[in-house]
Amino acid sequence: MHFPGMPVALARMVEMLGTLPGIGPKTAMRLALNLLERPAEDLKQMAAALAELQDKVTFCERCGCFAEQGHCQICDNVRRDTKLICVVEQPVDVLIMERGQGFAGKYHALHGRLSPVDGIGPDKLWLSSLDKRVVPGVELILATSATVDGEATAHFLARRYQASGAKISRIARGVPEGGELEYLDEHTLHRALAQRVIWEQAESLR
Amino acid sequence: MHFPGMPVALARMVEMLGTLPGIGPKTAMRLALNLLERPAEDLKQMAAALAELQDKVTFCERCGCFAEQGHCQICDNVRRDTKLICVVEQPVDVLIMERGQGFAGKYHALHGRLSPVDGIGPDKLWLSSLDKRVVPGVELILATSATVDGEATAHFLARRYQASGAKISRIARGVPEGGELEYLDEHTLHRALAQRVIWEQAESLR
Repeated sequence: MHFPGMPVALARMVEMLGTLPGIGPKTAMRLALNLLERPAEDLKQMAAALAELQDKVTFCERCGCFAEQGHCQICDNVRRDTKLICVVEQPVDVLIMERGQGFAGKYHALHGRLSPVDGIGPDKLWLSSLDKRVVPGVELILATSATVDGEATAHFLARRYQASGAKISRIARGVPEGGELEYLDEHTLHRALAQRVIWEQAESLR
Repeated sequence: MHFPGMPVALARMVEMLGTLPGIGPKTAMRLALNLLERPAEDLKQMAAALAELQDKVTFCERCGCFAEQGHCQICDNVRRDTKLICVVEQPVDVLIMERGQGFAGKYHALHGRLSPVDGIGPDKLWLSSLDKRVVPGVELILATSATVDGEATAHFLARRYQASGAKISRIARGVPEGGELEYLDEHTLHRALAQRVIWEQAESLR
């Protein structure tokens, strides 16, 4: 979107906002105009927050999750089961899992998933610290996404740690809570049927 | 959206992004994570652009449109008709009108529209410099929006400059280009019928 007569600083702001995911030229324009109208203090604070964001948010040396410094709170929590390691793609996935509060083990964030198309191979994933943690007696729960790349990553990990002596599992696939069969795709339905759970057991999980 | 274990700096960024118009908590989260993953240089540039945005973008002293300094390019353009003043609500409206390139007059941006609900009265609008420009022989084209507040603002201006000796007009209402009657609201349809244009005249405007 080129507008003759638009001030350079505004055009630059629109352009920058347009590089954010899901923000098209029109939305970028609306956001830039909103910024222009705000109290100067707001913009000052945003600028400061942007400038320090990456310095202030670091990752746990052990599990790759968000951490303010060194190890994360989850790794440092002695009441959590070190024999259960849930492997996720991104640090943010841990935040989402922790919202559920049903998991009392530890995590490992890979910081990505295998994607040959994007040139992301095993060397791009955070694996070296995970290698040290996958030992006999541990259960490794593969919680990568249910996408083609997520599945490929799960397969890769299952193979990598096949001989480690660790038990390897994959999170269940099936009908999501509140999901109506009518709107469900056939693959999910097929998986949900194939991996059906005995009634008493299903009830006990409610 | 509260996430236990989310770094403070990240939570703050999500919160700030969530104050932008049309950005909900989920989008704010996605944007913040995108920022986190970008090259540090990107964030530095964005921070700098934010910090200087309001200083770099100023408004024309005469017409209230965007200007890098003093008067705007449109006001300074001697080839534009000073007898035609198109009044719009916001400086950005001028950019949109200039895209069409069909208008060879000048503009005036009110920097708002009357809105009793939001406490915006005539004192909040940029009127003093307009008062000086509305003189006999001038045509004032009221191009405020076709909303309740935009209409009220147009009425207010028409009344304010009633005795000025200037001719006062309002931009046409009707079926938008490419608009199908099927999806048009009844008010627009009513206006389009009431303000119908003689065929030869409509053809000449194409």
